[in-house]
Amino acid sequence: MDQRQDDQFRFLLAIDKLKTVLRRSVLSDQSRRENSAEHSWHLATLALCLKEYAEGPVDILKVITMLLLHDIVEIDAGDMFVHSTEQQEKQHEKEVMAARRIFSLLPADQSATYHALWEEFDGGDSAEAKFARVIDRLEPVILHEATDAIVWRKHGTTHSQILRRLGSIENDAPRLWPRVKRVIDSAVATGALIED
Amino acid sequence: MDQRQDDQFRFLLAIDKLKTVLRRSVLSDQSRRENSAEHSWHLATLALCLKEYAEGPVDILKVITMLLLHDIVEIDAGDMFVHSTEQQEKQHEKEVMAARRIFSLLPADQSATYHALWEEFDGGDSAEAKFARVIDRLEPVILHEATDAIVWRKHGTTHSQILRRLGSIENDAPRLWPRVKRVIDSAVATGALIED
Repeated sequence: MDQRQDDQFRFLLAIDKLKTVLRRSVLSDQSRRENSAEHSWHLATLALCLKEYAEGPVDILKVITMLLLHDIVEIDAGDMFVHSTEQQEKQHEKEVMAARRIFSLLPADQSATYHALWEEFDGGDSAEAKFARVIDRLEPVILHEATDAIVWRKHGTTHSQILRRLGSIENDAPRLWPRVKRVIDSAVATGALIED
Repeated sequence: MDQRQDDQFRFLLAIDKLKTVLRRSVLSDQSRRENSAEHSWHLATLALCLKEYAEGPVDILKVITMLLLHDIVEIDAGDMFVHSTEQQEKQHEKEVMAARRIFSLLPADQSATYHALWEEFDGGDSAEAKFARVIDRLEPVILHEATDAIVWRKHGTTHSQILRRLGSIENDAPRLWPRVKRVIDSAVATGALIED
């Protein structure tokens, strides 16, 4: 066994824990909450099938790599769904620390590459990061639509909170926005989202 | 809303069910059985990190696409772990039917592309299919190693059954084989695999 391969397998075992990190979303059959590993699979598959809706050309392998890796920081930091700026900043600090620890398990070249991709996703500036972030916000919308927005309802979510979370889709993937807007408008109409 | 986008979203909602298909494997923390969606995420991430061990050049985006999509037939066919040839043939028939139904939810161009990739993986002949199949067999080995092979132990698995399942790794990714062989040999030594 060489050290390089040992390090790769240590990383690949460590990230198995992402399967135990629970998100707020529930599956479409409402049987249980979604975990972050299966969410990441769904995201990568969405990116594949919906790449034609990216604004301008994107390197889809880069987008998918970002989506497969971006949530692994939750192994240390948890998946905290927060609307306050102060809490968001604290969560972000935890995620930055987690990215350093987890990617450093890998050999130096892979660690640097994947850490840089994680930061690029986190920054949200490149075409790939913008599209990856659209996909990350879009997947829960599919589940909300399938479950009569039970999760929004349960948490007393407001219309303006969701517009702050999802509004960037209008700019970054305008051809997907009408579908997202329809789900939001319908949730407001049925009272699943609180009008504020 | 256009029909094309509606069809894409119908597919992307339908495959959410893969999160409810349970495999034989248990997670590394032994808290529960693994599902096929989170397994597919782990496979795609393994393929990314281990691509240097493929024999010859492979199109890694194609490998990852195969791995993201190859298990969705289990939504209809289930994940049946079988060692008898007769059962394997029956299971394969179910999967072929499932692939037809599920990929046909997509627009025709995507349906044809993904169905062909599924068949290519299933055939196992191209360099990409061979590497994808190595990865599909390798991920459970990581979990077996982490859990003292509890699943092999529980099901009375034999050494020769596992060699038939994993032996192709020796040819298709020889630099990964010593690690796999070490896990198998250790499981035989501890009695987790029955010597036959």
